[in-house]
Amino acid sequence: MTASRRTPGRRPGGPDTRGEILLAARESFADKGFAATSIRAVARQAEVDAALVHHYFDSKEELFVQAMSLPLDPRQVAARILDGPREELGRRIVTVFLGVWESDEGQQRMKAMLRSVVTSDDVARLMREGMTSMILQPVSQLLDVPDAMLRVSLIAGHLIGMALTRYVVELEPVASADLSTLVDRMGPAIQSYVDG
Amino acid sequence: MTASRRTPGRRPGGPDTRGEILLAARESFADKGFAATSIRAVARQAEVDAALVHHYFDSKEELFVQAMSLPLDPRQVAARILDGPREELGRRIVTVFLGVWESDEGQQRMKAMLRSVVTSDDVARLMREGMTSMILQPVSQLLDVPDAMLRVSLIAGHLIGMALTRYVVELEPVASADLSTLVDRMGPAIQSYVDG
Repeated sequence: MTASRRTPGRRPGGPDTRGEILLAARESFADKGFAATSIRAVARQAEVDAALVHHYFDSKEELFVQAMSLPLDPRQVAARILDGPREELGRRIVTVFLGVWESDEGQQRMKAMLRSVVTSDDVARLMREGMTSMILQPVSQLLDVPDAMLRVSLIAGHLIGMALTRYVVELEPVASADLSTLVDRMGPAIQSYVDG
Repeated sequence: MTASRRTPGRRPGGPDTRGEILLAARESFADKGFAATSIRAVARQAEVDAALVHHYFDSKEELFVQAMSLPLDPRQVAARILDGPREELGRRIVTVFLGVWESDEGQQRMKAMLRSVVTSDDVARLMREGMTSMILQPVSQLLDVPDAMLRVSLIAGHLIGMALTRYVVELEPVASADLSTLVDRMGPAIQSYVDG
C-alpha cells in the first residue's frame, strides 16, 4: 500500500482508495490541524484527484468524522441540540449527549477517543479544533448572551466530565443512575449556563 | 531492596523503610482497593511492625495520599469546601478545586493522575474509592437534599471535565479564562446542584 501511494502522478480510484484517503486525511489533520487541512491538500497527499475525495466524502467535516472514527457526526449533534425550545436547551443537551454514549458501539468509540485525547497532544488538538468549529461555535452563535463561547465550553466540559465519571471511572451513583434522573439533575445546571 | 523485603520476620526502620511501606501500600491498594486495605495489612506486606507504619503515616488516608502522590490531602480539600456559608458553596468548590490545579506541581500531578485514571482500571477504581470516602461522602453529608451523593458526584464530574478541557485539551476560551471569570461562571451552575 505504502509503495503504491508513493507512485508519482495521480491514480484513479482503486479498491483501497477510500482507505488511502482516510490515511492521508489523518496525517494531514495531525500535522496541520483541522482548520489548515483542505480537501485539495488531502488529495495531493493521497495522490488522487480532489474530485475523487469529494466522491467519497462530501466535505472536510465528513472526512474528519470518518478519519477520527467519531461515533456520529458532530454537525448532527449540533442540529439536534438546536432543534427545540430554548427553555429546554439544558435538558436537550444532556439527552443528546447521553444518547451518543448509551449505544455499545458509541460508548467504545467515545472511550477510545477520551483515552487518546488525554494521552496524545495531537489528538487533543484535533478534537479541540473539530469540536470548536462543528459544535461549540454553532451552538454559541444561537445563545444571545455575553461570553457565549465560554459558557458553551464549560457545558462541554461538564458533559465530558460526567461521561468520564459515569463510563470510565464508574463513580457511583452517577454510573448506575438512569437516563431520566441524569437529565432531571443536570438539565437545570446546564440551563443556568444558557440563561446566564 | 526487593531482596530485603523478602527477608522473613519483621525489620526495624531502615533508611528506606518509608519507601518500602509506600510500595507495599500501592500494591495493597491496587490489589484490594481502598476500603479493604488496612495499616496492618500494609505492615505485613512491607514486613515491618504496624507501629512503624503509624510512625510515618498517621492514618490509612494519609498513606493513600502519599502512595498516590496526590497534590494535596483530599480531607483538607473537603474541609476547605465545607468552611463557609452554604449560599457560597458553589463558588467555594470552584475556587478550592482550581487552587489545586493552578500551582505548577499540582497541575503536573493532577494531569498524571487524570491520564492514569483514564488508561488504568486499577487506578480508576482506587481514585473512585478514595475520592468517595474522603471528599464525596463528607460533602454530601452536609447537603440536606435528596440524591445528595448523585449531586456531589455530578459536581465532581463537572470539575474534572473543566480541568480536562482547560489544562489537557486546552480548549478555548476555557483554557485562558482567568480564575475569577471561571468562578463567576461556574459558581451558579455548581450552586444549582447544591440548592436543588
